[in-house]
Amino acid sequence: MEKVDLAEKFARFSEQWKPKIVGSFDDYHVKVAKVQGEFIWHSHHDEDELFMVVDGRLTIHFRDRDVELVPGEFLVVPKGVEHKPSAAEECQILMIERKGTVNTGDMENSSMTVQPEIL
Amino acid sequence: MEKVDLAEKFARFSEQWKPKIVGSFDDYHVKVAKVQGEFIWHSHHDEDELFMVVDGRLTIHFRDRDVELVPGEFLVVPKGVEHKPSAAEECQILMIERKGTVNTGDMENSSMTVQPEIL
Repeated sequence: MEKVDLAEKFARFSEQWKPKIVGSFDDYHVKVAKVQGEFIWHSHHDEDELFMVVDGRLTIHFRDRDVELVPGEFLVVPKGVEHKPSAAEECQILMIERKGTVNTGDMENSSMTVQPEIL
Repeated sequence: MEKVDLAEKFARFSEQWKPKIVGSFDDYHVKVAKVQGEFIWHSHHDEDELFMVVDGRLTIHFRDRDVELVPGEFLVVPKGVEHKPSAAEECQILMIERKGTVNTGDMENSSMTVQPEIL
């Protein structure tokens, strides 16, 4: 039962698009990631996904519109909704997802698919 | 599926210790609250509870120690663990709890007990 200092966690890695588990509650993980460039289109069949920006600017593309997130804002992507995160410059994000959620969702054999490590 | 701007939410109320629901994912609520002074000792029988500080400084007291949280830090209070939040000056916090979680946990008939409203 230790507090988590997000800045300290982000200082410990540099790779992009590789979520790290920094906390958990009930059946959920709190993950952080550094992202830059474009991710892939995907959806999560049975899990909502919460995105919060810690530093920088994140765009979440949907098939019909884009949502821009900056620090102090969050967005929940509902289960089943196709989305593609992107960031023009490196961005630090926090995500909350049910344990076992695959980062690439239904595109789980993508080259972007990774198992999150515990940080 | 709209993003949530926490500053905009906090600007819309002034009362303290009355959590507001600002988002949800799966079976969970994202709540915000302004807090100052001392809450009551309580625990949640079956729900972990995530606390994140948006502005100010929050102390979470446990029976054997205190944890201080500032912006950029979060803490998960495990189910069943007695805790008492406090803040010397007004503090803005974000909480993630399973839907239906009562703010005062096992002390659900306390004068501090409130039903969260949707903001």
